[in-house]
Amino acid sequence: MQTYQIAVLKGDGIGPEIVEQAMKVLTKAGQKFGFAVQFQQALLGGAAIDADGVPLPQKTVDICKAADSTLLGAVGGPKWDGQPGSNRPEKGLLGIRSALGLFANLRPAVIFPELKSASPLKDEIIGDNLDVLIVRELIGGIYFGERGRCIENGQEAAYDTEKYSVPEIERIVRVGFQMAMKRRKKMCSVDKANVLESSRLWRATVQRLSKEYPEVEVSYMYVDNCAMQLVRNPRQFDVIVTSNMFGDILSDEASMISGSIGMLASASLNDTKCGLYEPIHGSAPDIAGTGKANPLATVLSAAMMLRYSLDQPQAADAIEAAVSNALTKGRTCDIAGKGLPVLSCSEMGDLVCSLL
Amino acid sequence: MQTYQIAVLKGDGIGPEIVEQAMKVLTKAGQKFGFAVQFQQALLGGAAIDADGVPLPQKTVDICKAADSTLLGAVGGPKWDGQPGSNRPEKGLLGIRSALGLFANLRPAVIFPELKSASPLKDEIIGDNLDVLIVRELIGGIYFGERGRCIENGQEAAYDTEKYSVPEIERIVRVGFQMAMKRRKKMCSVDKANVLESSRLWRATVQRLSKEYPEVEVSYMYVDNCAMQLVRNPRQFDVIVTSNMFGDILSDEASMISGSIGMLASASLNDTKCGLYEPIHGSAPDIAGTGKANPLATVLSAAMMLRYSLDQPQAADAIEAAVSNALTKGRTCDIAGKGLPVLSCSEMGDLVCSLL
Ligand SMILES: CC(C)[C@H](C(=O)O)[C@@H](O)C(=O)O
Ligand SMILES: CC(C)[C@H](C(=O)O)[C@@H](O)C(=O)O
Repeated sequence: MQTYQIAVLKGDGIGPEIVEQAMKVLTKAGQKFGFAVQFQQALLGGAAIDADGVPLPQKTVDICKAADSTLLGAVGGPKWDGQPGSNRPEKGLLGIRSALGLFANLRPAVIFPELKSASPLKDEIIGDNLDVLIVRELIGGIYFGERGRCIENGQEAAYDTEKYSVPEIERIVRVGFQMAMKRRKKMCSVDKANVLESSRLWRATVQRLSKEYPEVEVSYMYVDNCAMQLVRNPRQFDVIVTSNMFGDILSDEASMISGSIGMLASASLNDTKCGLYEPIHGSAPDIAGTGKANPLATVLSAAMMLRYSLDQPQAADAIEAAVSNALTKGRTCDIAGKGLPVLSCSEMGDLVCSLL
Repeated sequence: MQTYQIAVLKGDGIGPEIVEQAMKVLTKAGQKFGFAVQFQQALLGGAAIDADGVPLPQKTVDICKAADSTLLGAVGGPKWDGQPGSNRPEKGLLGIRSALGLFANLRPAVIFPELKSASPLKDEIIGDNLDVLIVRELIGGIYFGERGRCIENGQEAAYDTEKYSVPEIERIVRVGFQMAMKRRKKMCSVDKANVLESSRLWRATVQRLSKEYPEVEVSYMYVDNCAMQLVRNPRQFDVIVTSNMFGDILSDEASMISGSIGMLASASLNDTKCGLYEPIHGSAPDIAGTGKANPLATVLSAAMMLRYSLDQPQAADAIEAAVSNALTKGRTCDIAGKGLPVLSCSEMGDLVCSLL
């Protein structure tokens, strides 16, 4: 029997509770579809600072590298606000992305029909089938460029550098094109080419590569306009490909528009099959341990892992169907539905398992 | 009689038509409130490229510097897409901001009650009184930092630098505090301090200055979260103060949320009373010359000028009241209302004048 090694980084806040549900679901899916899953836990973020003094211990990197893929909960919380910039929980997240070479972050913003009414946008704007995929560059740009303090005209100053090389742009843009080919064949490249030199190189690179994907309809948009268009008419988009910083902002905006933020999964991929999967929401320290957390985004992240990294598309389909089905039977309080029982985090995990 | 010298930069696309209406309204307001206005036209953007080969002729800078304030239409259009990065219409806009030292860009996102239904957000989210003021730093950061091409590991690369000095941060943050004091006394500073060094300096500076404004309730938010919160619950905000790049993105998002984008004015201010006033919308080359343009954002920009730069608050109030009144009598097609006549750009200008 095929056995997968999965590195598990529960992280902070609600991380442990939600990841446990996803582990249950993965194990159950294995029983049904004839594979086994072995979990290797490791520390990341605040939990790692508490145990080892650093947000990303080398052992964690080693475990993730040895695994077939990594499942992550969420990191961070006010407890570690006093840490210096170089030793914050977020540094662990940025560090593991970089250590694993995860340059492509896929963030789907989709509407679950059952939750459509949760969108802050009007019905006629959301429509019935919002499905935007944001492809965000994840290990370059201003997140990883040179930064520091300096003296400018005798005054203290600080700087960060947005930098992209052609190969860095090419590899993420190719992921955008490939995703568009599997979807509605539209890709919008978002930049600020009217101001930034790095954006001009980005845009020229997309223009050059577009010749290799003649079936994909390519468009270009400035980031300020995109932030507007996502609110005005999000259904105009299929795939959006953009830089690390712009992708951070636009993907959060897009996820909120869907109204399904407790339900949205993400994948971070490198050149191999091994990826890192995590919910797009945060560690919600305020409700940690109360049983109120919604584990479905993490469960759906596990389904994405089965599809993109483990070649188990049927198991992925089955989990997604079980989640849809579960939404009609009970819900956690963040997405409570009229007449439906309110479930705790682990009850929701159990419900999905029972529907598999 | 007090006479004001106003520099007028009509710019490109619909710029000339909308600015003409604002000029009519300013002249009429002067007759009513006992001041005179003299207009000095100058070229900016594409119009300047066509006439003089550069987007910001020195003469334009001189005229604006000599004036009491500047009224701007909009710049840019596909006609100049072939221009090199250093000679685009937008360069003229960035250049005049910088030449006049306009470090503070005030972008109110307000709802006009008559246009509430135009918001893409649900009624219960918008409420009755959305009124967010975005205070954007305008002549620093990645817009004006060092940029260029370089070779990285033998590959072509491009970079841009986000840089802020303490005095640059201080002066814009003080504007934020001062605005908050005149409003609901809440200021949210938006940054990405979990990643960027410049954001950490920004945040520390806000924290230090906040002691001088004990009445203002200060909060801090990451830019990705802010992009979400503007959609989820925009009414939580009073004043948002942020960097040039983040302000560009968030102010466009906020203006779209209001549903009143054809109605929104902006002011760009320096240390003196002299400012630059312009609508937040663009040059809309597709409808230029058709009479379809909505001049009200430009008319309201002129009202802002009367209030902030020319010490004519009554005239400003009167223009704003006339605009509100006009919305009940006729509208341009972008904001067409049931049962109301559709007006052309100049008809709308005449209507506002007649209601003054
Ligand atoms: C926590 C933070 C560093 C991170 C990012 O900005 O990438 C987060 O916002 C995300 O999008 O995963
Ligand atoms: C045209 C462009 C350079 C400009 C900017 O980014 O500042 C515009 O988007 C704005 O916000 O006024």
